[in-house]
Formats: sequence, C-alpha cells, structure tokens
Amino acid sequence: MTAIPNKALSPTLKLAMDLIRRPSVTPDDAGCQPLMMSRLAPLGFAEENLRFGTTDNLWARKGSEEPVLAFAGHTDVVPTGPEKNWAIPPFEAIIKDGMLHGRGAADMKGSLAAFVTACERFVGKHPNHRGSIALLITSDEEGPAGDGTVKVIETLEARNEKIDWCLIGEPSSTVNVGDTIKNGRRGSLHGYLTVHGVQGHVAYPHLAENPIHKVAPALHDLAQEFWDNGNDYFPPTTFQITKVEAGTGSNMIPGECLVHFNFRYCTESTAESLEERVVAVLGRHSLNYDLQWHLSGRPFLTDKGALVSASTAAIARVCGRETELSTSGGTSDGRFIAPTGAQVVELGPINATIHKVNECVSADDLDTLSQIYEEILVELLA
Amino acid sequence: MTAIPNKALSPTLKLAMDLIRRPSVTPDDAGCQPLMMSRLAPLGFAEENLRFGTTDNLWARKGSEEPVLAFAGHTDVVPTGPEKNWAIPPFEAIIKDGMLHGRGAADMKGSLAAFVTACERFVGKHPNHRGSIALLITSDEEGPAGDGTVKVIETLEARNEKIDWCLIGEPSSTVNVGDTIKNGRRGSLHGYLTVHGVQGHVAYPHLAENPIHKVAPALHDLAQEFWDNGNDYFPPTTFQITKVEAGTGSNMIPGECLVHFNFRYCTESTAESLEERVVAVLGRHSLNYDLQWHLSGRPFLTDKGALVSASTAAIARVCGRETELSTSGGTSDGRFIAPTGAQVVELGPINATIHKVNECVSADDLDTLSQIYEEILVELLA
Repeated sequence: MTAIPNKALSPTLKLAMDLIRRPSVTPDDAGCQPLMMSRLAPLGFAEENLRFGTTDNLWARKGSEEPVLAFAGHTDVVPTGPEKNWAIPPFEAIIKDGMLHGRGAADMKGSLAAFVTACERFVGKHPNHRGSIALLITSDEEGPAGDGTVKVIETLEARNEKIDWCLIGEPSSTVNVGDTIKNGRRGSLHGYLTVHGVQGHVAYPHLAENPIHKVAPALHDLAQEFWDNGNDYFPPTTFQITKVEAGTGSNMIPGECLVHFNFRYCTESTAESLEERVVAVLGRHSLNYDLQWHLSGRPFLTDKGALVSASTAAIARVCGRETELSTSGGTSDGRFIAPTGAQVVELGPINATIHKVNECVSADDLDTLSQIYEEILVELLA
Repeated sequence: MTAIPNKALSPTLKLAMDLIRRPSVTPDDAGCQPLMMSRLAPLGFAEENLRFGTTDNLWARKGSEEPVLAFAGHTDVVPTGPEKNWAIPPFEAIIKDGMLHGRGAADMKGSLAAFVTACERFVGKHPNHRGSIALLITSDEEGPAGDGTVKVIETLEARNEKIDWCLIGEPSSTVNVGDTIKNGRRGSLHGYLTVHGVQGHVAYPHLAENPIHKVAPALHDLAQEFWDNGNDYFPPTTFQITKVEAGTGSNMIPGECLVHFNFRYCTESTAESLEERVVAVLGRHSLNYDLQWHLSGRPFLTDKGALVSASTAAIARVCGRETELSTSGGTSDGRFIAPTGAQVVELGPINATIHKVNECVSADDLDTLSQIYEEILVELLA
C-alpha cells in the first residue's frame, strides 16, 4: 500500500476523504452536509436546511444579487454490495497508486470537495464578486429522488428565487477529466403493460388463452419500431423491455403476462407521441391489456451560451483540452432544474467505476477539477 | 342433512367411506392399502408390500396363471386446501342428496372400493376362474410419482411378471358413468429455455443485448408452428409457453430470459422430432441459448382389442350406454404400464369435481361402477 501521508494531501483530497468516510448510503446524509457547511459558512454562505421525509437537503447561498451560479450535487451514494468484494474497504478512503478509492469517490464526493475548495480560493481572491454562489445538495439522488432536488426547486420557485447557471458535479468525463460535459439529457418514460389471457391447464389449451403467445409478436414489433432519428444534440430514441413475467405452475397456461419497458427519448419525440405510438402498435395485435405510464423525466437541453462557454473555456485553460458536448447516459437531477429556465451543465470526473465495486477516481483529477470549477467561477462571477 | 343410515349402504359405499375417512394426502397411505388387503386376503390374494422412499405400494395377486388382469389405482389424494371452504368436512365421508362427499370420493377411492367389491362378488361366483387378478396400488400418483407405479412396474419387469390387461380406476366419465373410457393419453414434454443476452443499463443499449427482444420473434414462431394433424385417436399436438421470466431492475436490460414450455403430443410426433423442430426454429433467430428437456411421459394407445371390447360390452350390459374412446386430458400412471405391452384402459366415475373443493361422486354411480368392473372380470376371466 503506497498511501500518501496526510500532510502531502491537498485540501480537496482531504475533504473528499472526510466525506467518503461518512457512509452516506441513500437517503442517509451521515453528516456530509454539515461538514460541507462548516467550510462554507466562514466564506459567508447562508445555510438553509430543507429536510423532506427522510431526505436532508442543503441550500447554501453567498450573496443576494443576480446572476446566481448554483452547484448541484448529492451526498448520498449507492450501496456497496458485499464489502468482501472490495479490494479496499469502501468507506476507508485510501489513496493507492494515485487513485482515491471508496464508494462515492467518483460519484460524487470528489466533486463536492472540489467545488467547496474552489469556492474557498475564489472567495479568497474575489471577496466582492458579482452575483451569488449557491450550493443545492441533496441526500437522495441515487434513490427515489422524490424528496430531494425536486422539492428544493419547488421551494425556490415558490419564493421566486432563480438559478441562472447550474453546474452539476456528476461524473461526466470518459477518458480524461474535462473531455466531456453534458449539456442535456434524454427523457425517460416507463411503461407497465399487463396482457390478460385466460388461465388454464396445458392439457386443455382450447379452454384457455395464452397471454405470452398473444404478446410475443407485439413485443417484437415494438422492439423493431423506428422511433426517430435523433438530432444534432441527441442520439435516436431507444426502446428497451426491462422485465417480462408470466406463469407459475409447470402445467398451467398463465392468466396474464406483465411487461415493463422504458424509453430513453430525445427532443424529436415527446412522451405523448411515444405513448400514442405504443398504443397503435398494441392495437394491431387484438390484445386485452392494461397500460400504465410513468414519466421519469422529460428531455432537456442547454444550448451554447454563457455556462457552456465558461465551462469549455475553463477546461481549455486548466487542461489544454477540447471538450465534447454530450447528452448521453441516464437521467440526472438536471431534469428538475432545467425546466426553471436555468442553463444546466454537468461537469465532473471520469465515470468508469461509478456504481461498481472498487469505485475510485484519480487524485490528481480531483485537484484539476477544483481548478476548473474555480475558473468557471472566475469566468462568470469575478 | 339426509344422510342414509349405514344399514342401507352397499358394501361398495361402506368401503369407499372407510377409505375417505383415512386422510391419505400424498404420499401418506394412511392405512388404506391394509384396509383393502383385509378384504382381498380372504379371497386368496397374495400380498406384496413394495415401499420405495416414503411411498407405500401394494401388489396383490390372486392366481399364478396367465392372462393377468390388473386393476391399477392410488390411495393418495390431493390436498384439501382450507377445510373451511368445504361444505362438508373433506374426510367425513357423508352422503347427502345422493352424493358421496369427500376428498378422494371421485379420485379415486370410490373406484378402489368398487373394484374390491367386484372381486368379492366375482370370486364368490367364479372361484375357479382362469388367469389371475391383480391390484397395483400406489400412494404417490398425485405427487412426484417417482417411487410409485413406475417402481412397481420395474420390479415386475425384473422378474418377468407380465400384465396383459390393465384397468385403471381414474375418473374417466364426463356426464354419465361409463360414457367415456380412455384408451390412451398424449405425451407430455417440457422444455426449459434460457436465452442469454448482455446485461446493461437502459441508457446504454448499444453496450447490452436484450434477450427479451431476441427471443420474442422466436416465441411467436413457436406459438404459430404447425406440429401435426393428430389422428383418429388423438387431437393434434399442442405447444404452450407456461412461464417467461426476465428482468429485475426498472432501468436494467436483463442478462437472460427464461422460458418454460410444454408439448402435449400425439403419436404422430415423437419427443425427439419435437425437440429437433424446436431447435430448428430457434436456429432461425441467432440466439445464444441453453435448452433442457424433461420427458414427462410418452404417448400411449390401446387399440381396439380384448380389454376395450370387454369394457364397452360391460358398460353396455350394465348401463345400456355406448362408450366413447378418448385420449384427452392430462397424463396418468398408464404411461408407466403401457410400455410393458399391456393393454390399458381407464374407466372410472365422473370427473367433474376432482382436485376441487367439495369433491363428490354419485353414490349410485359407485354401485354401477362396481357392476361394470365385475362384468369386465366375467368377460375376460370367467
């Protein structure tokens, strides 16, 4: 173990390690937000704790002027799975061979630490900066997310408090830190289909109606359907069946068949247009069915503008690297923030190990990321 | 309650009631075979108890000559389910409005009693009958059936003891006792298919391969396939998917899809030909799969001959009724006996209530059935 002695550690790495050592599995904040606040308060940030249900949320703001640059992130982490599968225990936060190991190292305690130390340096150099800096931190991004960012945004909207630029610390990079930022996300639409047949004994199929036999060609048609072509910012809409379930007994024709499916869709389609088209496909197969929908998030896009420019300029200055704009990947809390009119960009470390065992992040990358964040603050608020 | 006083009951009904009062849920014989033997021993039947695992089997034979007419049946009954759902407690064996009520009344303690009393009358009248009469009784026909009839047949085969004619007491009748006998059964072949894909996140479908999307058109093809036309004795072979299972998480593309299916097949197909044809259909769909087979029973058929003739003649004489030959329904222990070369006919009471709550059988029908059995003994062995 080639652990770096603590005295050699940067403030960003020290803070990231302190955060990782708090085992904040969703929705438990485990003291992470108070730790962050203990660093932000001396800088002049006003603290507002917004607890909804079992979710701790922090809204910390320095300044009352506009424009508002808010950093959005989460202290919660996904479960570790069996700890014996980890080479280094997931909450010990050890640096080995240049990598900081631990659950949340990349997603996203490293980013939280990088932004806090960026604020410390920026405020130190620019005590009378223009506008406001804010942090919107939740402890339920990885879970149902019902009492997290969405509720904080409702609170801000209710009192007409606006975010102009929102920087989200999600791990957006792929090979080198800063090589990719996300300026939008696809929408996510879930469908829950129940096809009804008539249960019976396999020895008497004429007295039954097999819902699996009925639904199979419809599922094939849905899987083959062309939804749209995507556009300059988004890949084409995709359809995936995530679950099929029918049957219990070995000699029984089941009475119904459950099918769950999900669309990741771009701005060339809408939830409504996709729902209509699914119903049209099902209608060609004479099915007796129920269909429920859950819209997890509409697609959003931040076009080139001040925030995208500041981000790419900061990355170029710190890393000498060009940045790709992407809208790929899953959903993020940006889906709750973008509809307020805020520009939204996700910028964080390399995402190769997130949600996996042995999650880790380059220690140097976290220091680089903190510099990038500082440069964005300079670009927009100095 | 219009219960018939015991003194008015026929020997068949009295014995049926004594058998029902022994709660012999599979594989517990609960003293039924000893009770039957106590009636058969005085007639000259030699007792052989063949216990395999937890299953009691009885082989009782009167005479050492050929031909051998064996009655095959089972003392075990299926579970009652919650007894509160029964109008009359399932092991009280009460006659009400002409119906004998109780678990096993129709399947098949009524038949057991009817054959024992038929033997008593036949042997009384024909003490020096030709050939041999035997009973092959198991206590695990309703369960896994691995230690029942199949093991007794192995024992008989090993010592070259043959059954010429096998009369099975399964409830074959539909509207009137004797209206239908079964001279064969379809085969039953189970298939267990696992289609392998590549698990992944729905947001990155290009990195995954959805096994549900892959298998859906193959399932449609299998459901549409024409297997055979049946023949004079059998309906066409049928294919039914009994189970489909894939997927757990709402945003996951599953890694594999399980499919269970079953063929009920006639003598125009074989297990081997069906297996080959399934593999050929799957081969058209570029699937990565594993496929396991379980042959539950090959089809069997007893063509018109001495046993069918004796059965239809006996029914005509006792009931003045024509009998339909049928091969419909599930499997029976006939699948183990027919391959020895024995002629096999199933003849028993009306099957409308078997395996249900409030199982019951017409009291008069049991007396009629006993007369039919006696007439068959007369036809073949007098």
